[in-house]
Amino acid sequence: MPNLFADIPRDLPDELFETLAGAGPVRIERIVSNGQTSPEGFWYDQTESEWVVVLQGSARLRFEDENADTELGVGDHVLIAPHRRHRVTYTAAATVWLAVFF
Amino acid sequence: MPNLFADIPRDLPDELFETLAGAGPVRIERIVSNGQTSPEGFWYDQTESEWVVVLQGSARLRFEDENADTELGVGDHVLIAPHRRHRVTYTAAATVWLAVFF
Repeated sequence: MPNLFADIPRDLPDELFETLAGAGPVRIERIVSNGQTSPEGFWYDQTESEWVVVLQGSARLRFEDENADTELGVGDHVLIAPHRRHRVTYTAAATVWLAVFF
Repeated sequence: MPNLFADIPRDLPDELFETLAGAGPVRIERIVSNGQTSPEGFWYDQTESEWVVVLQGSARLRFEDENADTELGVGDHVLIAPHRRHRVTYTAAATVWLAVFF
């Protein structure tokens, strides 16, 4: 039985992206972050909608159209509209995200 | 900030289904179960694929094509193919599922 909280490498120099399920334009992804943030000046600008939840750890997102970071603790979820530019400004060690792109 | 573990009614005579996001054939749903199981002889038989994870509590599924229940603890996830008949044979109190239909 696959588990969202299993198989998290102890050393994680890069974020870990794994597609769990999906079809066509739909993709369900586990992302494990370990302190990584988006590079300075980088903004995600996606063609899909993304629904994302933090399931372990914590993180902060900055949306370009907002003046402050959005804090995400365990269970907090957010829907990111296509082309809403955003970046990751903080992740705790062993932060587990679940993202659905559609 | 909406949270998957918030707003769980103390009394829950029926399962609680809430669509969190989606578009077209895609639906992201929080389901809260509180001991409910599928009625005797009832099988879910869905046209969509369903990816489902238990995020709080625990549950058991029975697939018609298997001889034993599948146990789901926190973080355990399963992809249910269209028309794979299944039923819920056990849920703990305040079990939180996240389901993605696509």
